[in-house]
Amino acid sequence: MRAAVFLAMEEQDKLENKTPLVNQNLKRCLNTKDGRLVAALILDFLQVFHLDFSLAVFQPEINSVSGGVSREQLCRDLGLGENEGNRKSPLLLEL
Amino acid sequence: MRAAVFLAMEEQDKLENKTPLVNQNLKRCLNTKDGRLVAALILDFLQVFHLDFSLAVFQPEINSVSGGVSREQLCRDLGLGENEGNRKSPLLLEL
Repeated sequence: MRAAVFLAMEEQDKLENKTPLVNQNLKRCLNTKDGRLVAALILDFLQVFHLDFSLAVFQPEINSVSGGVSREQLCRDLGLGENEGNRKSPLLLEL
Repeated sequence: MRAAVFLAMEEQDKLENKTPLVNQNLKRCLNTKDGRLVAALILDFLQVFHLDFSLAVFQPEINSVSGGVSREQLCRDLGLGENEGNRKSPLLLEL
């Protein structure tokens, strides 16, 4: 049993080691409030312009950490008013 | 000859019609200075964190219009100082 757990963990380690140093950097960034905000802004941009392929790759690449941040929440965090006119243009453009 | 040109143009039209209305929106956005700036900022983010897969998809999806904007140019446009310390963090985070 202990061996099985160990093997499973080692397997996990191997998987994690596939993502090299650079992603430590990204992880650190996404662990900050600003980092999450920026990632959410990029997701917003990709969604507004229906860049579905980019979205399909970007979300897993950042582990979709910020997937939970809604546009409404984003607006609040940035101190932007969420009016209907905004919906067609990415929030990044409002900054 | 005239027919050949016409056929070639029609072929081109067909290709362009594959990209639907939504990309008209994107095109319009990328034709503005702010739009290009935002796209360049996203490219910068993807480059800094070596999100190579996202980059490989995002660049063709936006037709890499902003591929010509260097980080240095971007800094100037945004009124940011380009110091070495910045290089490890995306410009988006400096805003």
